[in-house]
Amino acid sequence: MPKTRRQTSIEVVSIGNELLIGQTLDTNSNWIAKQVTKHGWTLERVTQLGDSLVAIQHGIKEALDRKPYLLVTIGGLGPTHDDMTLKGVAKALNRPMAPNQDALNLIRRHYSAMENTVPLTSHRRKMAILPEGSKPLPNPIGTAPGVIMKSGRTMIVSLPGVPGEMRAIFKGSVLPLLQTPHSGPPQEAFMFLTGIIESALAPVLQQAQRRYPALYFKSHPRGKETGVKPLIQIHIYSTARGSQQKIGNALTFLVHTLSSLAPRTY
Amino acid sequence: MPKTRRQTSIEVVSIGNELLIGQTLDTNSNWIAKQVTKHGWTLERVTQLGDSLVAIQHGIKEALDRKPYLLVTIGGLGPTHDDMTLKGVAKALNRPMAPNQDALNLIRRHYSAMENTVPLTSHRRKMAILPEGSKPLPNPIGTAPGVIMKSGRTMIVSLPGVPGEMRAIFKGSVLPLLQTPHSGPPQEAFMFLTGIIESALAPVLQQAQRRYPALYFKSHPRGKETGVKPLIQIHIYSTARGSQQKIGNALTFLVHTLSSLAPRTY
Repeated sequence: MPKTRRQTSIEVVSIGNELLIGQTLDTNSNWIAKQVTKHGWTLERVTQLGDSLVAIQHGIKEALDRKPYLLVTIGGLGPTHDDMTLKGVAKALNRPMAPNQDALNLIRRHYSAMENTVPLTSHRRKMAILPEGSKPLPNPIGTAPGVIMKSGRTMIVSLPGVPGEMRAIFKGSVLPLLQTPHSGPPQEAFMFLTGIIESALAPVLQQAQRRYPALYFKSHPRGKETGVKPLIQIHIYSTARGSQQKIGNALTFLVHTLSSLAPRTY
Repeated sequence: MPKTRRQTSIEVVSIGNELLIGQTLDTNSNWIAKQVTKHGWTLERVTQLGDSLVAIQHGIKEALDRKPYLLVTIGGLGPTHDDMTLKGVAKALNRPMAPNQDALNLIRRHYSAMENTVPLTSHRRKMAILPEGSKPLPNPIGTAPGVIMKSGRTMIVSLPGVPGEMRAIFKGSVLPLLQTPHSGPPQEAFMFLTGIIESALAPVLQQAQRRYPALYFKSHPRGKETGVKPLIQIHIYSTARGSQQKIGNALTFLVHTLSSLAPRTY
Protein backbone atom coordinates (compact mmCIF):
# COMPACT_ATOMS: atom_id res chain seq x y z
CA MET A 1 0.00 0.00 0.00
CA PRO A 2 1.19 3.53 -0.62
CA LYS A 3 2.40 5.15 2.59
CA THR A 4 0.44 8.32 2.11
CA ARG A 5 -2.90 7.99 0.47
CA ARG A 6 -4.69 10.58 -1.54
CA GLN A 7 -6.78 13.10 0.38
CA THR A 8 -9.69 11.67 -1.59
CA SER A 9 -9.33 7.97 -0.78
CA ILE A 10 -12.38 6.09 0.45
CA GLU A 11 -12.99 2.54 1.59
CA VAL A 12 -16.32 0.82 2.13
CA VAL A 13 -16.93 -2.12 4.46
CA SER A 14 -20.32 -3.69 3.81
CA ILE A 15 -21.56 -6.02 6.55
CA GLY A 16 -24.14 -8.80 6.59
CA ASN A 17 -24.33 -12.59 6.21
CA GLU A 18 -27.02 -12.04 3.57
CA LEU A 19 -24.31 -10.63 1.26
CA LEU A 20 -21.97 -13.60 1.70
CA ILE A 21 -24.64 -16.27 1.16
CA GLY A 22 -25.71 -14.46 -2.00
CA GLN A 23 -29.22 -13.67 -0.76
CA THR A 24 -28.66 -9.92 -1.17
CA LEU A 25 -26.74 -8.17 -3.95
CA ASP A 26 -24.62 -5.37 -2.49
CA THR A 27 -26.24 -2.44 -4.27
CA ASN A 28 -25.34 -0.18 -1.31
CA SER A 29 -21.61 -0.08 -2.02
CA ASN A 30 -22.35 0.38 -5.73
CA TRP A 31 -24.48 3.42 -4.88
CA ILE A 32 -21.73 4.84 -2.65
CA ALA A 33 -19.21 4.20 -5.45
CA LYS A 34 -21.30 6.28 -7.86
CA GLN A 35 -21.83 9.06 -5.34
CA VAL A 36 -18.22 9.51 -4.31
CA THR A 37 -16.94 9.21 -7.89
CA LYS A 38 -19.41 11.89 -9.02
CA HIS A 39 -17.95 14.18 -6.35
CA GLY A 40 -14.34 13.59 -7.38
CA TRP A 41 -13.39 11.06 -4.72
CA THR A 42 -11.67 7.71 -5.22
CA LEU A 43 -13.15 4.50 -3.87
CA GLU A 44 -10.10 2.31 -3.36
CA ARG A 45 -11.61 -0.86 -1.93
CA VAL A 46 -14.88 -2.49 -0.94
CA THR A 47 -14.89 -5.30 1.62
CA GLN A 48 -17.92 -7.46 2.34
CA LEU A 49 -17.97 -9.19 5.72
CA GLY A 50 -20.42 -11.39 7.62
CA ASP A 51 -22.12 -10.75 10.95
CA SER A 52 -19.15 -11.88 13.04
CA LEU A 53 -17.61 -9.66 15.66
CA VAL A 54 -14.12 -11.02 15.00
CA ALA A 55 -14.47 -10.59 11.23
CA ILE A 56 -15.75 -7.02 11.61
CA GLN A 57 -13.04 -6.06 14.12
CA HIS A 58 -10.27 -7.40 11.87
CA GLY A 59 -11.76 -6.03 8.65
CA ILE A 60 -12.11 -2.53 10.12
CA LYS A 61 -8.62 -2.66 11.66
CA GLU A 62 -7.10 -3.64 8.31
CA ALA A 63 -8.97 -0.86 6.52
CA LEU A 64 -7.79 1.71 9.11
CA ASP A 65 -4.20 0.50 8.67
CA ARG A 66 -4.48 1.52 5.01
CA LYS A 67 -5.33 5.06 6.21
CA PRO A 68 -8.17 6.05 3.88
CA TYR A 69 -9.49 9.57 4.26
CA LEU A 70 -13.01 8.22 4.74
CA LEU A 71 -14.08 4.76 5.86
CA VAL A 72 -17.76 3.97 5.41
CA THR A 73 -19.31 0.93 7.08
CA ILE A 74 -22.74 -0.20 5.92
CA GLY A 75 -25.12 -2.46 7.86
CA GLY A 76 -25.37 -3.92 11.35
CA LEU A 77 -26.64 -0.87 13.26
CA GLY A 78 -30.12 -2.12 14.11
CA PRO A 79 -31.75 -3.51 17.26
CA THR A 80 -31.23 -7.25 16.66
CA HIS A 81 -28.63 -9.58 18.18
CA ASP A 82 -26.64 -9.86 14.95
CA ASP A 83 -26.23 -6.08 14.57
CA MET A 84 -22.70 -5.68 15.91
CA THR A 85 -20.92 -3.26 13.61
CA LEU A 86 -20.33 -0.55 16.22
CA LYS A 87 -18.97 -3.08 18.70
CA GLY A 88 -16.57 -4.26 15.98
CA VAL A 89 -15.50 -0.68 15.18
CA ALA A 90 -14.97 0.04 18.90
CA LYS A 91 -12.81 -3.09 19.26
CA ALA A 92 -10.77 -2.15 16.17
CA LEU A 93 -10.23 1.33 17.67
CA ASN A 94 -9.64 -0.07 21.15
CA ARG A 95 -12.31 2.23 22.57
CA PRO A 96 -15.13 1.38 24.99
CA MET A 97 -18.80 1.49 24.03
CA ALA A 98 -20.93 3.96 25.98
CA PRO A 99 -24.52 5.25 25.95
CA ASN A 100 -24.71 8.42 23.87
CA GLN A 101 -27.25 10.99 25.01
CA ASP A 102 -27.68 12.63 21.58
CA ALA A 103 -28.32 9.26 19.98
CA LEU A 104 -30.81 8.36 22.71
CA ASN A 105 -32.65 11.63 22.11
CA LEU A 106 -32.87 10.89 18.37
CA ILE A 107 -34.22 7.41 19.06
CA ARG A 108 -36.66 8.62 21.71
CA ARG A 109 -37.95 11.32 19.35
CA HIS A 110 -38.34 8.75 16.59
CA TYR A 111 -40.41 6.35 18.68
CA SER A 112 -42.48 9.09 20.30
CA ALA A 113 -43.64 10.08 16.80
CA MET A 114 -45.31 6.69 16.40
CA GLU A 115 -49.02 6.25 17.00
CA ASN A 116 -48.62 3.62 19.75
CA THR A 117 -46.57 4.00 22.89
CA VAL A 118 -43.13 2.53 22.33
CA PRO A 119 -41.15 1.93 25.51
CA LEU A 120 -37.36 2.28 25.26
CA THR A 121 -36.51 -1.40 25.69
CA SER A 122 -32.91 -2.58 25.94
CA HIS A 123 -32.96 -3.55 22.25
CA ARG A 124 -33.98 0.00 21.35
CA ARG A 125 -31.44 1.58 23.73
CA LYS A 126 -28.77 -0.61 22.10
CA MET A 127 -28.91 1.64 19.02
CA ALA A 128 -27.76 4.56 21.22
CA ILE A 129 -24.69 2.76 22.58
CA LEU A 130 -21.80 4.05 20.49
CA PRO A 131 -18.00 3.86 20.48
CA GLU A 132 -16.66 6.56 22.82
CA GLY A 133 -15.92 9.82 21.03
CA SER A 134 -18.45 9.33 18.25
CA LYS A 135 -21.54 11.31 17.30
CA PRO A 136 -24.88 10.18 15.91
CA LEU A 137 -26.07 11.26 12.46
CA PRO A 138 -29.84 11.75 12.16
CA ASN A 139 -31.75 9.07 10.26
CA PRO A 140 -34.63 10.96 8.63
CA ILE A 141 -36.56 7.86 7.57
CA GLY A 142 -35.67 5.10 10.02
CA THR A 143 -34.65 4.41 13.60
CA ALA A 144 -30.96 3.56 13.88
CA PRO A 145 -28.90 6.75 13.63
CA GLY A 146 -25.73 6.81 11.57
CA VAL A 147 -22.51 7.29 13.51
CA ILE A 148 -19.42 9.37 12.81
CA MET A 149 -16.03 9.36 14.52
CA LYS A 150 -12.36 10.09 13.84
CA SER A 151 -9.32 7.84 14.05
CA GLY A 152 -6.12 9.68 13.20
CA ARG A 153 -6.69 11.25 9.79
CA THR A 154 -9.47 8.84 8.95
CA MET A 155 -13.12 9.82 9.27
CA ILE A 156 -15.25 6.75 10.03
CA VAL A 157 -18.94 6.83 9.14
CA SER A 158 -21.28 3.95 9.99
CA LEU A 159 -24.57 3.75 8.09
CA PRO A 160 -27.52 1.35 8.41
CA GLY A 161 -27.97 -1.31 5.70
CA VAL A 162 -31.56 -0.50 4.71
CA PRO A 163 -30.88 1.21 1.36
CA GLY A 164 -33.25 4.15 1.80
CA GLU A 165 -31.89 4.97 5.26
CA MET A 166 -28.26 4.56 4.12
CA ARG A 167 -28.82 6.96 1.22
CA ALA A 168 -30.69 9.54 3.27
CA ILE A 169 -27.99 9.72 5.96
CA PHE A 170 -25.18 9.75 3.38
CA LYS A 171 -26.76 12.61 1.45
CA GLY A 172 -27.87 14.53 4.52
CA SER A 173 -24.81 14.20 6.75
CA VAL A 174 -21.83 12.74 4.88
CA LEU A 175 -21.67 14.45 1.49
CA PRO A 176 -21.66 17.93 3.07
CA LEU A 177 -18.63 16.94 5.17
CA LEU A 178 -16.47 15.87 2.25
CA GLN A 179 -14.17 18.73 1.32
CA THR A 180 -14.00 19.58 -2.34
CA PRO A 181 -11.11 17.44 -3.55
CA HIS A 182 -8.37 18.58 -5.91
CA SER A 183 -9.65 16.31 -8.60
CA GLY A 184 -12.96 17.22 -10.16
CA PRO A 185 -16.08 15.28 -11.03
CA PRO A 186 -15.32 12.63 -13.64
CA GLN A 187 -15.39 13.43 -17.32
CA GLU A 188 -16.00 10.50 -19.55
CA ALA A 189 -16.90 9.20 -22.98
CA PHE A 190 -18.06 5.86 -24.29
CA MET A 191 -17.42 4.23 -27.67
CA PHE A 192 -19.08 1.10 -28.96
CA LEU A 193 -17.28 -1.07 -31.49
CA THR A 194 -18.45 -4.05 -33.49
CA GLY A 195 -16.45 -6.25 -35.83
CA ILE A 196 -13.33 -6.18 -33.72
CA ILE A 197 -12.33 -8.49 -30.87
CA GLU A 198 -10.76 -7.31 -27.64
CA SER A 199 -7.36 -8.86 -28.36
CA ALA A 200 -7.15 -6.89 -31.65
CA LEU A 201 -8.12 -3.72 -29.83
CA ALA A 202 -5.59 -4.25 -27.02
CA PRO A 203 -2.50 -2.76 -28.77
CA VAL A 204 -4.50 0.29 -29.92
CA LEU A 205 -5.78 0.92 -26.40
CA GLN A 206 -2.27 0.56 -25.05
CA GLN A 207 -1.03 3.20 -27.54
CA ALA A 208 -3.86 5.50 -26.46
CA GLN A 209 -3.02 4.93 -22.79
CA ARG A 210 0.65 5.85 -23.42
CA ARG A 211 -0.33 8.94 -25.40
CA TYR A 212 -2.85 10.13 -22.79
CA PRO A 213 -1.53 8.93 -19.40
CA ALA A 214 -3.93 11.18 -17.45
CA LEU A 215 -6.93 9.36 -18.93
CA TYR A 216 -8.16 5.92 -18.04
CA PHE A 217 -9.05 3.56 -20.91
CA LYS A 218 -10.98 0.39 -20.36
CA SER A 219 -12.62 -2.07 -22.73
CA HIS A 220 -15.63 -4.14 -21.74
CA PRO A 221 -16.50 -7.06 -24.02
CA ARG A 222 -20.27 -7.19 -24.31
CA GLY A 223 -20.31 -10.23 -26.59
CA LYS A 224 -18.17 -13.30 -27.11
CA GLU A 225 -14.71 -13.01 -28.64
CA THR A 226 -15.80 -15.61 -31.18
CA GLY A 227 -19.30 -14.22 -31.73
CA VAL A 228 -20.20 -13.15 -35.24
CA LYS A 229 -20.74 -9.62 -33.97
CA PRO A 230 -18.53 -9.05 -30.97
CA LEU A 231 -19.49 -5.82 -29.25
CA ILE A 232 -16.96 -3.90 -27.20
CA GLN A 233 -17.63 -0.89 -25.04
CA ILE A 234 -14.68 1.46 -24.53
CA HIS A 235 -14.81 3.72 -21.51
CA ILE A 236 -12.54 6.79 -21.45
CA TYR A 237 -12.53 8.47 -18.12
CA SER A 238 -10.71 11.06 -16.00
CA THR A 239 -11.12 12.99 -12.77
CA ALA A 240 -8.30 15.43 -13.63
CA ARG A 241 -9.69 18.93 -14.12
CA GLY A 242 -9.94 20.20 -17.70
CA SER A 243 -9.61 16.79 -19.28
CA GLN A 244 -12.59 17.29 -21.62
CA GLN A 245 -10.27 18.40 -24.45
CA LYS A 246 -7.95 15.43 -23.90
CA ILE A 247 -10.87 13.02 -23.99
CA GLY A 248 -11.94 14.56 -27.30
CA ASN A 249 -8.43 14.14 -28.69
CA ALA A 250 -8.26 10.55 -27.46
CA LEU A 251 -11.56 9.75 -29.17
CA THR A 252 -10.24 11.22 -32.43
CA PHE A 253 -7.03 9.21 -32.04
CA LEU A 254 -8.96 5.97 -31.45
CA VAL A 255 -11.35 6.49 -34.35
CA HIS A 256 -8.46 7.36 -36.64
CA THR A 257 -6.27 4.43 -35.58
CA LEU A 258 -9.08 1.90 -35.64
CA SER A 259 -10.30 2.96 -39.08
CA SER A 260 -6.76 2.59 -40.44
CA LEU A 261 -6.76 -1.08 -39.45
CA ALA A 262 -7.79 -3.48 -42.20
CA PRO A 263 -11.45 -4.41 -41.71
CA ARG A 264 -11.85 -7.30 -39.27
CA THR A 265 -8.15 -7.48 -38.56
CA TYR A 266 -8.39 -10.41 -36.21
CA MET B 1 -8.67 -13.91 12.46
CA PRO B 2 -9.03 -17.50 13.64
CA LYS B 3 -5.73 -19.36 13.26
CA THR B 4 -7.22 -22.39 11.58
CA ARG B 5 -10.07 -21.75 9.22
CA ARG B 6 -12.79 -24.12 8.29
CA GLN B 7 -12.05 -26.60 5.49
CA THR B 8 -14.90 -24.89 3.67
CA SER B 9 -13.79 -21.25 3.84
CA ILE B 10 -13.74 -19.22 0.66
CA GLU B 11 -12.70 -15.69 -0.19
CA VAL B 12 -13.41 -13.79 -3.39
CA VAL B 13 -11.34 -10.91 -4.75
CA SER B 14 -13.17 -9.08 -7.53
CA ILE B 15 -10.99 -6.81 -9.67
CA GLY B 16 -11.80 -3.86 -11.92
CA ASN B 17 -11.97 -0.05 -11.78
CA GLU B 18 -15.48 -0.30 -13.20
CA LEU B 19 -16.61 -1.78 -9.85
CA LEU B 20 -15.07 1.01 -7.77
CA ILE B 21 -16.46 3.86 -9.88
CA GLY B 22 -19.90 2.27 -9.67
CA GLN B 23 -20.22 1.66 -13.41
CA THR B 24 -20.63 -2.09 -12.89
CA LEU B 25 -22.51 -3.83 -10.09
CA ASP B 26 -20.52 -6.84 -8.86
CA THR B 27 -22.99 -9.58 -9.77
CA ASN B 28 -20.09 -12.01 -10.24
CA SER B 29 -19.25 -12.33 -6.55
CA ASN B 30 -22.97 -12.59 -5.75
CA TRP B 31 -23.24 -15.50 -8.18
CA ILE B 32 -20.19 -17.20 -6.63
CA ALA B 33 -21.72 -16.61 -3.16
CA LYS B 34 -24.90 -18.44 -4.19
CA GLN B 35 -22.98 -21.29 -5.82
CA VAL B 36 -20.63 -22.02 -2.95
CA THR B 37 -23.38 -21.64 -0.33
CA LYS B 38 -25.56 -24.12 -2.23
CA HIS B 39 -22.71 -26.61 -2.08
CA GLY B 40 -22.18 -26.24 1.67
CA TRP B 41 -19.20 -23.86 1.56
CA THR B 42 -18.76 -20.63 3.49
CA LEU B 43 -17.89 -17.40 1.73
CA GLU B 44 -16.05 -15.44 4.43
CA ARG B 45 -15.14 -12.25 2.62
CA VAL B 46 -15.43 -10.44 -0.70
CA THR B 47 -12.90 -7.76 -1.62
CA GLN B 48 -13.30 -5.42 -4.58
CA LEU B 49 -10.11 -3.86 -5.90
CA GLY B 50 -9.20 -1.58 -8.81
CA ASP B 51 -6.86 -2.25 -11.74
CA SER B 52 -3.70 -1.42 -9.80
CA LEU B 53 -0.82 -3.86 -9.55
CA VAL B 54 0.03 -2.71 -6.01
CA ALA B 55 -3.59 -2.95 -4.84
CA ILE B 56 -3.98 -6.43 -6.33
CA GLN B 57 -0.68 -7.68 -4.90
CA HIS B 58 -1.55 -6.44 -1.40
CA GLY B 59 -5.18 -7.56 -1.53
CA ILE B 60 -4.20 -11.09 -2.60
CA LYS B 61 -1.41 -11.27 -0.03
CA GLU B 62 -3.78 -10.23 2.76
CA ALA B 63 -6.36 -12.80 1.64
CA LEU B 64 -3.70 -15.56 1.56
CA ASP B 65 -2.58 -14.59 5.08
CA ARG B 66 -6.13 -15.41 6.26
CA LYS B 67 -5.60 -18.93 4.84
CA PRO B 68 -8.91 -19.62 3.14
CA TYR B 69 -9.35 -23.05 1.62
CA LEU B 70 -10.22 -21.49 -1.73
CA LEU B 71 -9.39 -18.01 -3.01
CA VAL B 72 -11.21 -16.96 -6.17
CA THR B 73 -10.09 -13.90 -8.12
CA ILE B 74 -12.43 -12.49 -10.75
CA GLY B 75 -11.46 -10.18 -13.61
CA GLY B 76 -8.27 -8.86 -15.16
CA LEU B 77 -7.23 -11.92 -17.24
CA GLY B 78 -7.75 -10.46 -20.71
CA PRO B 79 -5.43 -9.10 -23.39
CA THR B 80 -5.54 -5.38 -22.52
CA HIS B 81 -2.94 -3.32 -20.67
CA ASP B 82 -5.07 -3.03 -17.52
CA ASP B 83 -5.52 -6.80 -17.16
CA MET B 84 -2.91 -7.50 -14.49
CA THR B 85 -4.47 -9.93 -12.03
CA LEU B 86 -2.02 -12.78 -12.67
CA LYS B 87 0.95 -10.46 -12.28
CA GLY B 88 -0.49 -9.33 -8.94
CA VAL B 89 -1.05 -12.92 -7.82
CA ALA B 90 2.52 -13.83 -8.85
CA LYS B 91 3.91 -10.90 -6.89
CA ALA B 92 1.84 -11.83 -3.83
CA LEU B 93 3.19 -15.40 -4.08
CA ASN B 94 6.70 -14.20 -4.88
CA ARG B 95 6.77 -16.38 -7.99
CA PRO B 96 7.92 -15.45 -11.50
CA MET B 97 5.58 -15.27 -14.49
CA ALA B 98 6.35 -17.68 -17.31
CA PRO B 99 4.80 -18.72 -20.63
CA ASN B 100 2.61 -21.78 -20.12
CA GLN B 101 2.46 -24.22 -23.03
CA ASP B 102 -0.94 -25.68 -22.11
CA ALA B 103 -2.43 -22.19 -21.91
CA LEU B 104 -0.88 -21.25 -25.24
CA ASN B 105 -2.38 -24.36 -26.83
CA LEU B 106 -5.83 -23.45 -25.50
CA ILE B 107 -5.51 -19.92 -26.86
CA ARG B 108 -4.15 -21.08 -30.21
CA ARG B 109 -7.00 -23.58 -30.54
CA HIS B 110 -9.51 -20.85 -29.68
CA TYR B 111 -8.27 -18.43 -32.32
CA SER B 112 -7.80 -21.09 -34.98
CA ALA B 113 -11.53 -21.84 -34.69
CA MET B 114 -12.31 -18.31 -35.91
CA GLU B 115 -13.22 -17.64 -39.52
CA ASN B 116 -10.39 -15.15 -40.12
CA THR B 117 -6.72 -15.82 -39.55
CA VAL B 118 -5.77 -14.58 -36.11
CA PRO B 119 -2.02 -14.26 -35.53
CA LEU B 120 -0.75 -14.87 -31.99
CA THR B 121 0.22 -11.28 -31.22
CA SER B 122 1.97 -10.36 -27.98
CA HIS B 123 -1.36 -9.23 -26.50
CA ARG B 124 -2.83 -12.65 -27.21
CA ARG B 125 0.25 -14.50 -25.92
CA LYS B 126 -0.02 -12.45 -22.72
CA MET B 127 -3.04 -14.54 -21.72
CA ALA B 128 -0.75 -17.61 -21.68
CA ILE B 129 1.84 -16.09 -19.34
CA LEU B 130 0.98 -17.47 -15.92
CA PRO B 131 2.50 -17.53 -12.42
CA GLU B 132 4.99 -20.41 -12.25
CA GLY B 133 3.41 -23.63 -11.00
CA SER B 134 -0.09 -22.84 -12.18
CA LYS B 135 -2.32 -24.57 -14.71
CA PRO B 136 -4.85 -23.15 -17.17
CA LEU B 137 -8.55 -24.00 -16.92
CA PRO B 138 -10.37 -24.22 -20.28
CA ASN B 139 -12.68 -21.33 -21.15
CA PRO B 140 -15.45 -22.96 -23.21
CA ILE B 141 -16.98 -19.70 -24.42
CA GLY B 142 -14.18 -17.11 -24.47
CA THR B 143 -10.46 -16.65 -24.95
CA ALA B 144 -8.68 -16.05 -21.63
CA PRO B 145 -8.31 -19.36 -19.79
CA GLY B 146 -8.94 -19.53 -16.06
CA VAL B 147 -5.90 -20.32 -13.91
CA ILE B 148 -5.46 -22.58 -10.89
CA MET B 149 -2.54 -22.85 -8.47
CA LYS B 150 -1.77 -23.82 -4.87
CA SER B 151 -0.21 -21.79 -2.08
CA GLY B 152 0.17 -23.82 1.10
CA ARG B 153 -3.29 -25.20 1.89
CA THR B 154 -5.01 -22.55 -0.22
CA MET B 155 -6.24 -23.29 -3.72
CA ILE B 156 -6.17 -20.13 -5.84
CA VAL B 157 -8.45 -19.90 -8.86
CA SER B 158 -8.42 -16.90 -11.23
CA LEU B 159 -11.44 -16.41 -13.47
CA PRO B 160 -12.18 -13.83 -16.19
CA GLY B 161 -14.65 -11.05 -15.41
CA VAL B 162 -17.04 -11.55 -18.33
CA PRO B 163 -19.95 -13.17 -16.44
CA GLY B 164 -20.70 -15.96 -18.93
CA GLU B 165 -17.04 -17.01 -19.10
CA MET B 166 -16.61 -16.79 -15.32
CA ARG B 167 -19.65 -19.01 -14.75
CA ALA B 168 -18.68 -21.56 -17.40
CA ILE B 169 -15.15 -22.04 -16.00
CA PHE B 170 -16.40 -22.14 -12.40
CA LYS B 171 -18.99 -24.80 -13.19
CA GLY B 172 -16.74 -26.77 -15.53
CA SER B 173 -13.46 -26.73 -13.61
CA VAL B 174 -13.89 -25.41 -10.06
CA LEU B 175 -17.06 -26.98 -8.61
CA PRO B 176 -15.85 -30.53 -9.41
CA LEU B 177 -12.65 -29.84 -7.44
CA LEU B 178 -14.38 -28.77 -4.24
CA GLN B 179 -14.48 -31.72 -1.87
CA THR B 180 -17.79 -32.46 -0.29
CA PRO B 181 -17.65 -30.44 2.90
CA HIS B 182 -18.79 -31.63 6.31
CA SER B 183 -21.64 -29.18 6.31
CA GLY B 184 -24.44 -29.81 3.87
CA PRO B 185 -26.35 -27.62 1.47
CA PRO B 186 -28.25 -24.92 3.33
CA GLN B 187 -31.69 -25.55 4.71
CA GLU B 188 -33.79 -22.48 5.18
CA ALA B 189 -37.19 -20.99 5.79
CA PHE B 190 -38.62 -17.51 5.40
CA MET B 191 -41.35 -15.79 7.43
CA PHE B 192 -42.97 -12.49 6.56
CA LEU B 193 -44.41 -10.37 9.33
CA THR B 194 -46.51 -7.24 9.20
CA GLY B 195 -47.71 -5.07 12.05
CA ILE B 196 -44.54 -5.44 14.08
CA ILE B 197 -41.38 -3.34 13.93
CA GLU B 198 -37.89 -4.77 14.04
CA SER B 199 -37.09 -3.44 17.49
CA ALA B 200 -40.14 -5.25 18.91
CA LEU B 201 -39.08 -8.43 17.15
CA ALA B 202 -35.48 -8.19 18.36
CA PRO B 203 -35.94 -9.81 21.82
CA VAL B 204 -37.99 -12.66 20.32
CA LEU B 205 -35.32 -13.37 17.71
CA GLN B 206 -32.69 -13.31 20.42
CA GLN B 207 -34.64 -15.92 22.40
CA ALA B 208 -34.93 -18.05 19.27
CA GLN B 209 -31.19 -17.71 18.61
CA ARG B 210 -30.40 -18.86 22.17
CA ARG B 211 -32.79 -21.79 21.93
CA TYR B 212 -31.48 -22.91 18.51
CA PRO B 213 -27.80 -21.95 18.41
CA ALA B 214 -27.11 -24.12 15.33
CA LEU B 215 -29.52 -22.02 13.26
CA TYR B 216 -28.98 -18.55 11.93
CA PHE B 217 -31.78 -16.01 12.40
CA LYS B 218 -31.85 -12.72 10.55
CA SER B 219 -34.50 -10.07 10.12
CA HIS B 220 -34.64 -7.83 7.05
CA PRO B 221 -36.89 -4.77 7.32
CA ARG B 222 -38.65 -4.36 4.01
CA GLY B 223 -40.53 -1.24 5.03
CA LYS B 224 -39.97 1.70 7.32
CA GLU B 225 -39.99 1.23 11.08
CA THR B 226 -42.58 3.99 11.23
CA GLY B 227 -44.59 2.85 8.22
CA VAL B 228 -48.23 2.01 8.79
CA LYS B 229 -47.54 -1.53 7.61
CA PRO B 230 -43.91 -2.33 8.36
CA LEU B 231 -42.93 -5.58 6.64
CA ILE B 232 -40.18 -7.74 8.03
CA GLN B 233 -38.68 -10.79 6.41
CA ILE B 234 -37.20 -13.35 8.79
CA HIS B 235 -34.65 -15.73 7.36
CA ILE B 236 -33.89 -18.94 9.26
CA TYR B 237 -30.95 -20.77 7.85
CA SER B 238 -28.48 -23.59 8.55
CA THR B 239 -25.83 -25.62 6.79
CA ALA B 240 -25.66 -28.21 9.58
CA ARG B 241 -26.89 -31.58 8.34
CA GLY B 242 -30.36 -32.66 9.50
CA SER B 243 -31.43 -29.20 10.61
CA GLN B 244 -34.80 -29.42 8.80
CA GLN B 245 -36.53 -30.54 11.99
CA LYS B 246 -34.89 -27.77 14.04
CA ILE B 247 -35.97 -25.15 11.52
CA GLY B 248 -39.53 -26.48 11.79
CA ASN B 249 -39.36 -26.24 15.58
CA ALA B 250 -37.93 -22.73 15.41
CA LEU B 251 -40.75 -21.62 13.11
CA THR B 252 -43.30 -23.04 15.57
CA PHE B 253 -41.53 -21.28 18.44
CA LEU B 254 -41.56 -17.94 16.59
CA VAL B 255 -45.19 -18.16 15.54
CA HIS B 256 -46.19 -19.15 19.07
CA THR B 257 -44.14 -16.42 20.78
CA LEU B 258 -45.15 -13.69 18.36
CA SER B 259 -48.84 -14.51 18.58
CA SER B 260 -48.67 -14.35 22.38
CA LEU B 261 -47.52 -10.71 22.15
CA ALA B 262 -50.29 -8.14 22.45
CA PRO B 263 -51.24 -6.98 18.95
CA ARG B 264 -48.96 -4.15 17.73
CA THR B 265 -46.79 -4.27 20.83
CA TYR B 266 -44.57 -1.47 19.79
